Amino acid sequence: MMKLHGYFRSSASYRVRIALNLKGLTAEHLPHHLRKGEQRSPVYLALNPQGLVPTLEDDSGTALIQSLAIIEWLDETHPEPPLLPKDPLRRAQVRAFAQVLACDTHPVQNLKVLARLRELGLPEDKVTAWAGWANREGLAACEALVKHEPGPFCFGATPTLADLCLVPQLGNARRFGVDVGAFPRLLQAEAAAKALPAFAQAAPERQPDAE
Amino acid sequence: MMKLHGYFRSSASYRVRIALNLKGLTAEHLPHHLRKGEQRSPVYLALNPQGLVPTLEDDSGTALIQSLAIIEWLDETHPEPPLLPKDPLRRAQVRAFAQVLACDTHPVQNLKVLARLRELGLPEDKVTAWAGWANREGLAACEALVKHEPGPFCFGATPTLADLCLVPQLGNARRFGVDVGAFPRLLQAEAAAKALPAFAQAAPERQPDAE
Repeated sequence: MMKLHGYFRSSASYRVRIALNLKGLTAEHLPHHLRKGEQRSPVYLALNPQGLVPTLEDDSGTALIQSLAIIEWLDETHPEPPLLPKDPLRRAQVRAFAQVLACDTHPVQNLKVLARLRELGLPEDKVTAWAGWANREGLAACEALVKHEPGPFCFGATPTLADLCLVPQLGNARRFGVDVGAFPRLLQAEAAAKALPAFAQAAPERQPDAE
Repeated sequence: MMKLHGYFRSSASYRVRIALNLKGLTAEHLPHHLRKGEQRSPVYLALNPQGLVPTLEDDSGTALIQSLAIIEWLDETHPEPPLLPKDPLRRAQVRAFAQVLACDTHPVQNLKVLARLRELGLPEDKVTAWAGWANREGLAACEALVKHEPGPFCFGATPTLADLCLVPQLGNARRFGVDVGAFPRLLQAEAAAKALPAFAQAAPERQPDAE
């Protein structure tokens, strides 16, 4: 059986949990408590030299890292239902939306970066403002990318990699006090996604390690 | 003809320039001076709502954003030479390496984030230290990912998406004072890449807008 090393609140782990559920795949879930630094153990670093979650071990124990790479691998090895459109231009649009969040938004507000800001002496209100800023910028760009797309999901009638990134990011945005009402098209996609068991069961509060 | 909106020093633009060169494709290069905020003009924001470079306009004027999505589109529409292996697991490894840099490293040290740190009152030496830290963490993980890979490139005998991300990032790392001698396997891949005209001609200092 595959093993997913994750953390209930990690957005990147959350994306992979949704992908596994949509594909109907099961994996053993191995939580690593990020705030306690469990992802920094030598055993885990041998699997994932970044010391980040998620890591997916395939059936033969080979470790895959980076959520988007893991999800594309799942999509290539278990094609149904597809998480990317067939047309190259549409694939590029879905991937670009996902990368606005997975490259330019989430890593700028993750636990590691916020901890570094605190080390530099930034007070807590400014740390939260930083995280809010990163979320607002990323989500505003995403809203612009899909505002003329027919819904209900980000790109059409079925969920794609874009929705897998959007739902966890909106959760982060709310935690950092962002007014997500400014992004009505994104909220439409989120509502469609959350109505699916694959998304609902992947939610942080439904994980065994949730606090 | 395709149009590439970029900036000579932008790592993400640099990646796409290498990909175009490897594929033997030409594009009209349209520089946007990031330090002067030219990427924030309303005309450009209509193409790229993030106000970042690169943006690639295809032959019909459709705008593609996000460097990794652009490169995968180029690879899907112009398959030779391939920038990803055929085997799904190898593809996942190449993509993961690229994402360590494109998601977790570069966006944490880009112009926009460093400007924000300055706005928060961080002195210049601490801003440079921040950028150095992000580069060191990302490159150390990349070194671990490929240290047992046969070279000379990151993943074998030909360049892949991994090398397209590595070469620009090593340039950034040096600018921020990182001791790149700590990453011998990455330097081997960089040397192999820089010997190719496709990489050499994409270098920042060879661009018309270079200062």
